Amino acid sequence: MPNNQVLESPAEVRAAIARGEIDTHTSALCPGHAQANLVILPRGWAFDFLLFGLKNSQACPILEVLEPGDPLLKVLAPGADVRDTLPRYRVWRDGQLAGEPTDIHEEWQDDLVSFFVGCSFSFDDALSRAGLPVRHRDLGLNVPMYRSGLSAQSAGRLHGPLVVSMRPMPPHLVEKARLISQGFGESHGGPVHSGDPEEIGIEDLSSPTYGDAVPVEPGEVPMFWACGVTPQAALVASEVPFAITHAPGHMFITDLKAEELSEKALTSCA
Amino acid sequence: MPNNQVLESPAEVRAAIARGEIDTHTSALCPGHAQANLVILPRGWAFDFLLFGLKNSQACPILEVLEPGDPLLKVLAPGADVRDTLPRYRVWRDGQLAGEPTDIHEEWQDDLVSFFVGCSFSFDDALSRAGLPVRHRDLGLNVPMYRSGLSAQSAGRLHGPLVVSMRPMPPHLVEKARLISQGFGESHGGPVHSGDPEEIGIEDLSSPTYGDAVPVEPGEVPMFWACGVTPQAALVASEVPFAITHAPGHMFITDLKAEELSEKALTSCA
Repeated sequence: MPNNQVLESPAEVRAAIARGEIDTHTSALCPGHAQANLVILPRGWAFDFLLFGLKNSQACPILEVLEPGDPLLKVLAPGADVRDTLPRYRVWRDGQLAGEPTDIHEEWQDDLVSFFVGCSFSFDDALSRAGLPVRHRDLGLNVPMYRSGLSAQSAGRLHGPLVVSMRPMPPHLVEKARLISQGFGESHGGPVHSGDPEEIGIEDLSSPTYGDAVPVEPGEVPMFWACGVTPQAALVASEVPFAITHAPGHMFITDLKAEELSEKALTSCA
Repeated sequence: MPNNQVLESPAEVRAAIARGEIDTHTSALCPGHAQANLVILPRGWAFDFLLFGLKNSQACPILEVLEPGDPLLKVLAPGADVRDTLPRYRVWRDGQLAGEPTDIHEEWQDDLVSFFVGCSFSFDDALSRAGLPVRHRDLGLNVPMYRSGLSAQSAGRLHGPLVVSMRPMPPHLVEKARLISQGFGESHGGPVHSGDPEEIGIEDLSSPTYGDAVPVEPGEVPMFWACGVTPQAALVASEVPFAITHAPGHMFITDLKAEELSEKALTSCA
């Protein structure tokens, strides 16, 4: 990855991803640009997931939905092909992880519906610019994500736990982090919990379910945000026959600034 | 219908409807309470419609969606049965009107998904209370609705024209009507057009596509709002094999005040 990565446009970064030159997590790529989680399901499961997203709008804010069989984005990055512009995918069969390819041209089917879901990486840059620590970014790591003890709202045949991402924060900056992230409603918004992890069923911060562990300094408050990996936990819990998602932390980088999402997202309030 | 109708609660009015004692349009019933359009489709068409609603959120703000086969509401009026609590339904086969029953117990199937969509009757009371004329209400009529020349956004197999409702307004009250209705985002919000009907492809205000014609006094400005009958026009244009809707103007009366919708609606921004 070239050193001037942060200067490249989303289109250039996606092109490098499509050429196979980038297969890392996207935490620090294109700072300021909105990133998105991906869920691809056959048409027969699309209603269940769209309703799941609406019922769990903090974890799964729906940014864009492609028509069945259409792999080309229209809103978040017009013309981009969902099949090779994410650095790593996960293929799921009967709720089991069946592969982690870097493109999904071979898995593509004419009835597949692609859903793009808001991502907390979208507000990390705003936290950084405000002088707040974003531990995983500061250390070049993927964000730590945890399967919590909270349940997502079920919808159709889909059910499962709420997955959360975690950022440790000094106590005097907790309120500021809450206020800043609240402004990004299409990217999970404010935290779902701040403080003792056990209160939301997380026993060991050093063993995240997905992503990388990050150090929590003495006195720091762990802050938890609803996470767009929640659908992946639902695919497992609900034993969905076939699905494709992004690999956790390996997101779709959109052409939009994080602040523009509220005008453009499918379920936006603008 | 008893004279004290306006004093009765939504639950009492729905019970009278279920007993067959009310089969009229609901324009003036339970003023201040939110009313809802209804669309019922087999599960195989549910994704198309939910996406159609999200893409056309001004015409089709989605208030509540019931699980496949479940006829009982959970949010808008907990425990109410969608099969007999509207005064009149429309049954559609292959895009053709096949009947207008007063209940749908015989048509019910285990795979039917019920969608409740916001309705402009919800803000008529706010207009009246602010001293604005609401012509159809003032005359005891159903609102006039027109198939416009504007297109709805297509979604999956669904496409069709935008249907609009019309309220004539004296010129000095147009801005006030716009501002008041804008506050009801889950009930179609502000108008889509004010002024010359031909600009949106409506040739004759005295011949509405649905509902009743109302007089437009000289100098009055016709104001047009996106209408929850838009899905019915899409069912026709898209030749949907089977669907059930409310009869235009014969709405589901919810337990919620119009102002409460923003907190409770599925696609709310609260």
